[in-house]
Amino acid sequence: MRIIGFDPGLADTGYGVIETDGNRVVCLDYGSIKTPAKTDLPSRLLTISKEITKLIKKYNPERIGIEQLFFSKNVKTAMAVGQARGVILLAIAHTSIPIFEFTPNQVKQAVSAYGSASKDQIQRMVKMILNLKEIPKPDDAADALAIAICASGNVQHK
Amino acid sequence: MRIIGFDPGLADTGYGVIETDGNRVVCLDYGSIKTPAKTDLPSRLLTISKEITKLIKKYNPERIGIEQLFFSKNVKTAMAVGQARGVILLAIAHTSIPIFEFTPNQVKQAVSAYGSASKDQIQRMVKMILNLKEIPKPDDAADALAIAICASGNVQHK
Repeated sequence: MRIIGFDPGLADTGYGVIETDGNRVVCLDYGSIKTPAKTDLPSRLLTISKEITKLIKKYNPERIGIEQLFFSKNVKTAMAVGQARGVILLAIAHTSIPIFEFTPNQVKQAVSAYGSASKDQIQRMVKMILNLKEIPKPDDAADALAIAICASGNVQHK
Repeated sequence: MRIIGFDPGLADTGYGVIETDGNRVVCLDYGSIKTPAKTDLPSRLLTISKEITKLIKKYNPERIGIEQLFFSKNVKTAMAVGQARGVILLAIAHTSIPIFEFTPNQVKQAVSAYGSASKDQIQRMVKMILNLKEIPKPDDAADALAIAICASGNVQHK
């Protein structure tokens, strides 16, 4: 089963692609869709939309995981993330791929077995689970991989 | 000049279509795109996207006005509105129609000459400016018309 995870953001939307056969989980790709702040908002959303559509076409996943954010530093940030998230969900809505949503705490619990894990601990767990040589960068790509792992329902705690 | 105004929301997105020849402003259409809460989020965003695209094609406006919300009751609401707003801006980004953004206070100031006007006062001003028989309903349609009036730059204060 192939899964893409997305960590939505207006400036940076992280993505992570994994594949699992039930026992092993391997990382196929990860990265970040970046849109410059100097570009106008509709163009930034258009870039996110096009890149998400490209990734879905390229990897043709059976599941898509996406972060569900209920809390944020402030309303302005929530609005910006919401706009990016809306565009991502719309791109997925054009397909029939099932969507799995996880709050940051659910991701922490699934990947590290306890909800209070630091960002750094999550990243090291992602590196370990996917047997990567290095911690995936940037941060939102690592988060997207963690979301994909959650959506696979294939986390093994030791 | 034809202008569409949008008041974005996940459950209700208000729209208002006006036309102005520089002296007179007339109302061509107004209403609200509603998406039921029981429907899944991607489908709701898809409905908003399709209806916005239909309205733009139908009226082929020279300008589009949209509410810019920096403040909100809470982060959860901001996220929901943001998702709808992202999808609307994406639909506009597929055209080359210029976008004019206004905060609720800018709308209040433009339509009623003072920023502390109540929702009710705004609605009565919209009715007067557009020479309507009744106050446009629902509220978000009235707000969308106020945004369109702002985007026309055609407000005459008495």
